[in-house]
Amino acid sequence: MQKMKAAILHKPFDVRIEEIPVPEVKPDEALVKIKAVGVCGSDVHYYEHGKIGRYVVEKPLILGHEAGGEVVAVGENVTGLKVGQRVAIEPGVTCGKCQYCKEGRYNLCPDVVFLATPPVDGAFCEYISIRADFLHPIPDNMSYEAASLIEPFSVGLHACRRAGVKPGDTVAVLGLGPVGLLTIVAARAFGAANIIAADLESIRLEMAKEMGASVVINAKEQDVRKAVLEATSGIGADVAIETAGSTVTNQMAVEVARRGGKVALVGLPPKPQVEFNVLSIADNELDIFGIFRYSNTYPAAVQLLSSGIAPVEKLVTHRFTLEQTKEALELARTQKSTSIKVMVNM
Amino acid sequence: MQKMKAAILHKPFDVRIEEIPVPEVKPDEALVKIKAVGVCGSDVHYYEHGKIGRYVVEKPLILGHEAGGEVVAVGENVTGLKVGQRVAIEPGVTCGKCQYCKEGRYNLCPDVVFLATPPVDGAFCEYISIRADFLHPIPDNMSYEAASLIEPFSVGLHACRRAGVKPGDTVAVLGLGPVGLLTIVAARAFGAANIIAADLESIRLEMAKEMGASVVINAKEQDVRKAVLEATSGIGADVAIETAGSTVTNQMAVEVARRGGKVALVGLPPKPQVEFNVLSIADNELDIFGIFRYSNTYPAAVQLLSSGIAPVEKLVTHRFTLEQTKEALELARTQKSTSIKVMVNM
Amino acid sequence: MQKMKAAILHKPFDVRIEEIPVPEVKPDEALVKIKAVGVCGSDVHYYEHGKIGRYVVEKPLILGHEAGGEVVAVGENVTGLKVGQRVAIEPGVTCGKCQYCKEGRYNLCPDVVFLATPPVDGAFCEYISIRADFLHPIPDNMSYEAASLIEPFSVGLHACRRAGVKPGDTVAVLGLGPVGLLTIVAARAFGAANIIAADLESIRLEMAKEMGASVVINAKEQDVRKAVLEATSGIGADVAIETAGSTVTNQMAVEVARRGGKVALVGLPPKPQVEFNVLSIADNELDIFGIFRYSNTYPAAVQLLSSGIAPVEKLVTHRFTLEQTKEALELARTQKSTSIKVMVNM
Amino acid sequence: MQKMKAAILHKPFDVRIEEIPVPEVKPDEALVKIKAVGVCGSDVHYYEHGKIGRYVVEKPLILGHEAGGEVVAVGENVTGLKVGQRVAIEPGVTCGKCQYCKEGRYNLCPDVVFLATPPVDGAFCEYISIRADFLHPIPDNMSYEAASLIEPFSVGLHACRRAGVKPGDTVAVLGLGPVGLLTIVAARAFGAANIIAADLESIRLEMAKEMGASVVINAKEQDVRKAVLEATSGIGADVAIETAGSTVTNQMAVEVARRGGKVALVGLPPKPQVEFNVLSIADNELDIFGIFRYSNTYPAAVQLLSSGIAPVEKLVTHRFTLEQTKEALELARTQKSTSIKVMVNM
Repeated sequence: MQKMKAAILHKPFDVRIEEIPVPEVKPDEALVKIKAVGVCGSDVHYYEHGKIGRYVVEKPLILGHEAGGEVVAVGENVTGLKVGQRVAIEPGVTCGKCQYCKEGRYNLCPDVVFLATPPVDGAFCEYISIRADFLHPIPDNMSYEAASLIEPFSVGLHACRRAGVKPGDTVAVLGLGPVGLLTIVAARAFGAANIIAADLESIRLEMAKEMGASVVINAKEQDVRKAVLEATSGIGADVAIETAGSTVTNQMAVEVARRGGKVALVGLPPKPQVEFNVLSIADNELDIFGIFRYSNTYPAAVQLLSSGIAPVEKLVTHRFTLEQTKEALELARTQKSTSIKVMVNM
Repeated sequence: MQKMKAAILHKPFDVRIEEIPVPEVKPDEALVKIKAVGVCGSDVHYYEHGKIGRYVVEKPLILGHEAGGEVVAVGENVTGLKVGQRVAIEPGVTCGKCQYCKEGRYNLCPDVVFLATPPVDGAFCEYISIRADFLHPIPDNMSYEAASLIEPFSVGLHACRRAGVKPGDTVAVLGLGPVGLLTIVAARAFGAANIIAADLESIRLEMAKEMGASVVINAKEQDVRKAVLEATSGIGADVAIETAGSTVTNQMAVEVARRGGKVALVGLPPKPQVEFNVLSIADNELDIFGIFRYSNTYPAAVQLLSSGIAPVEKLVTHRFTLEQTKEALELARTQKSTSIKVMVNM
Repeated sequence: MQKMKAAILHKPFDVRIEEIPVPEVKPDEALVKIKAVGVCGSDVHYYEHGKIGRYVVEKPLILGHEAGGEVVAVGENVTGLKVGQRVAIEPGVTCGKCQYCKEGRYNLCPDVVFLATPPVDGAFCEYISIRADFLHPIPDNMSYEAASLIEPFSVGLHACRRAGVKPGDTVAVLGLGPVGLLTIVAARAFGAANIIAADLESIRLEMAKEMGASVVINAKEQDVRKAVLEATSGIGADVAIETAGSTVTNQMAVEVARRGGKVALVGLPPKPQVEFNVLSIADNELDIFGIFRYSNTYPAAVQLLSSGIAPVEKLVTHRFTLEQTKEALELARTQKSTSIKVMVNM
Repeated sequence: MQKMKAAILHKPFDVRIEEIPVPEVKPDEALVKIKAVGVCGSDVHYYEHGKIGRYVVEKPLILGHEAGGEVVAVGENVTGLKVGQRVAIEPGVTCGKCQYCKEGRYNLCPDVVFLATPPVDGAFCEYISIRADFLHPIPDNMSYEAASLIEPFSVGLHACRRAGVKPGDTVAVLGLGPVGLLTIVAARAFGAANIIAADLESIRLEMAKEMGASVVINAKEQDVRKAVLEATSGIGADVAIETAGSTVTNQMAVEVARRGGKVALVGLPPKPQVEFNVLSIADNELDIFGIFRYSNTYPAAVQLLSSGIAPVEKLVTHRFTLEQTKEALELARTQKSTSIKVMVNM
């Protein structure tokens, strides 16, 4: 049995590089040699706390779910993929049989098996085997880092799709972590003509401009609501997308949307109860959409990123090797104001 | 100049029957002899408090905006309406020129002129003149009372349409005033197969069954959330519609919707700030729709009610003459647990 | 190995009752004892011609794909179904992995395995084994015949859903075979207030009234286009649905739709080339929807039919036993003007 | 009474520059000094034939309906526009009262008053007065020529919106006159990642690349259907948009759409009857959308073109003065293979 290296979380702050067996390839799976894996906020949270909500790391776990790699073996039932193919990995394998899967909302599948969500191992390792229909071929002009960025980009695409961003729209993005920044790119893909981006960190505001924001607001220095109204002739945004996961940005999202506008809630605030102004929701006929992961985004995302819609690799501010996975997690944990996306490259 | 009788609110609790001039008919208007007018909660609120939010009764005002009547004169530019025609009156005249009007969401028109909203007079009188395109012909088999019920029915239709009620759906209606009860009828029109209705008053629960509810929940006696889950095999409602306008029903609406479900917020709670569980909204990918009045509902409503979809006239529990308008308002104000819809018939 | 009886088509007109092995139950399948199977036009076509288009009966085949039955065994991976459960059988097992399946349009799955489509055996037999997620529990108050009628009813539901039938709409249904008649029921489920039904056979026009049509047109005696215009004050239908599969009804569907209306094309004309008036399609901004089978209809259909929306069992004009399958097919083939749905009951 | 110059069509080929009164400004209108007017195919058709279908030039007529200009006077009821403002002119003034207007599909308004459609005068003159809500302010960085191009661009936006073009889509545009070329820009605004453009003229194929087409097909040299399939790995286009108005491109649009794809029919073929393959429409579940003008496109179009989405002014291949209007029409009529958009600048 072949062996591979993996970065394994044993308990908070305890990540070790170990040799484990290369996973077996089931008939409808393909084995992928991992090339690039982004560090996500959830990885950092498991690394620091050993759990997220009801998901607890009870046995050693491999983190990492934003990944791209190369197909090195295919199961006997797999068609349409071949050895040597470069792919982006969609990290949630769904059942295909429940009501949600059948209706096209497979992100709500209760039986999803999601990489790096306990007890399912993730991608900070040399190989993973995964159902072949969740591997999406990428063209030669697309880097493995871009392939791994499709995961957070998908969240933005899904939010924009659910919120119905239309050509010519003004979109406000509140919170500019990697998801927020890639939501700017997604909003441009949906034709948004004006994108207003707000955050507390100037490095992120700079990056927002690179991704296509027309107006950036430093929430340390400006009243966000006033600034959005000013940038929209007093009307408000057609669509407001919250990605920061704080109480105040959740409330702000509802306040900066225009009459008849739409709101997407992506981030999860630490305290789940948030006070909204129902009078304003009803009077302005707002639509508010909860966002949970994504579905049916990867093929479009490959098309969009490979067409050069935005220089997304610029989001990668720090790069590490597999052996340095702990350093990567540590940096992402401690340098939130100077890093954007931390990448582990094999 | 011809005179007519009108019930005029001078100050809270002070409603007088007076003679005033019959309104002039502008070129694109028609004059309607009022036949039936329903008493709405907003009429009662103006009667009792002299204002609703920013709308203040500063000069004598005729209340009443749920009305049906007969065309007695048409302006020179009016086509498609003739004297003698029986009509339902859509009470908000919109500008037809703003973005909202042009996009088909004329209920959001900032320049709407809405009957019985200060300073615009309403329909507790013998005649009103109104733009002819807001008069909707009704067939002979439809009563004027049914015509006047189209107004609250429209709110239910609009809520169901925005919330995407589909054939086979399970819909929970929280709050069973006239709007809630007519929302049951609307949900049936959209094909809902199971309608769960909750309220505190048994008269309303009885009426809910008449309108087509499959399950009724007395919120005094049962935990509404548990009861909805029980009635849906633990899944929750496809669509939850809040019409009660209380803090707790707003929160409940979000809690009884199933994963991937939809919520419509119709009622206005006295305290606008309501705490929602954002974690649950995002995790379950709920869609929450604020509802403000309605648009493009009257033609469908005429078709539906005249096809006998439900015995809506049963909602009329008390009837008064124009001269008794004060008594009608007083009864509606004081007998909330024994009346449903109070009607003024001319 | 247990044996069962099956009606097997060897070549055109040659149907024999034979003993064959009861199918093996795979881990994600359930074994269903068949109780009722409707005879579909496609069954009759295979019986008569041995093929439909590119699908050719090259080896002995069991026909029948509109079926209801009782679960008698479940595979080891099956949850949510148990022995003794009464079910409707959705006859197309899809891959769950292709783009169409993932987007919720699984009726377009290129790898579907569809009952009674060569070389896949169907349900004119005692038992079939099928993936459990395509078995839909039915309540006690629903007959097995109604369960089997869900299949053609699903076509109508899918057509109405794609064509966006809305409460209050006027819908014209052209062609009143079982699919057309059940499309009337489907249109009512979507809230259609006026349903205009046209056919050449008076038995079908009678049945259309039973299913809920408001106006019926005998196309032998009346000009259908004129009659629809007359029934709609010269406006035309909001939605026109073609189910007859003739050249003339396809053209008619486009002609009877109102300005801004919608058209669903369900039937397959023997000669695929049909001349449409493009000027009228563009000028009136029609939407034309091709319809192929259905997806995500069974759960709603169970809810709707069990709620008693229409007396669909009346569509069953003739009943046979399994042993009489040939007679059933023969009757359906020869008595098109006196039969509606021919049923095989076990 | 002030006078102005206008190019007046008296009969086919007879266009004269004459002095006529400056139009009176009604209370809800504004007077616009025309700055740029594009020559449309319909202008050329009236110029050559004196009629289009049922619209006949029976008295002298000013042509031109693609226009931009400067507000020089506003009526007494007009708010939100002021003298000196630069505007794009939306040329169809709708009633605001019919069902279509109220539902947001005002392009279907039966009472529309459309510039340069007999007997309504158009914009080849110095001033026009038009209802102010059809004047759309443009920013300083937008040229009057770009403003006039919003009219044909709107047709493309409307087609893409109705056909549901989504980010990542592959769109085939058949026919590359100005509408086809601007449909390429529109498809990009909706996020199309691959745009395949086909025409017979190489100048148009060159221009298609400038507008953002990824693949161009010379229909003189290549089989369009094969070329689209080749460019899409044998799958076909997600959306096919016909703008050429020929029988063959109408049929081709249906053939190059993928299974589950969408088709928009924009152009009007000289012979309205076109044979479509209904078997393929049903089997592939195509959606076919007739397109008539546009609604609610101007505000978005202003945002998109002013954000520099494409160098649309390059489409202007020839420029004339108002005095040269006849030359402009003549050139557009005779040099179809060497001109794209002919512009009259004041």
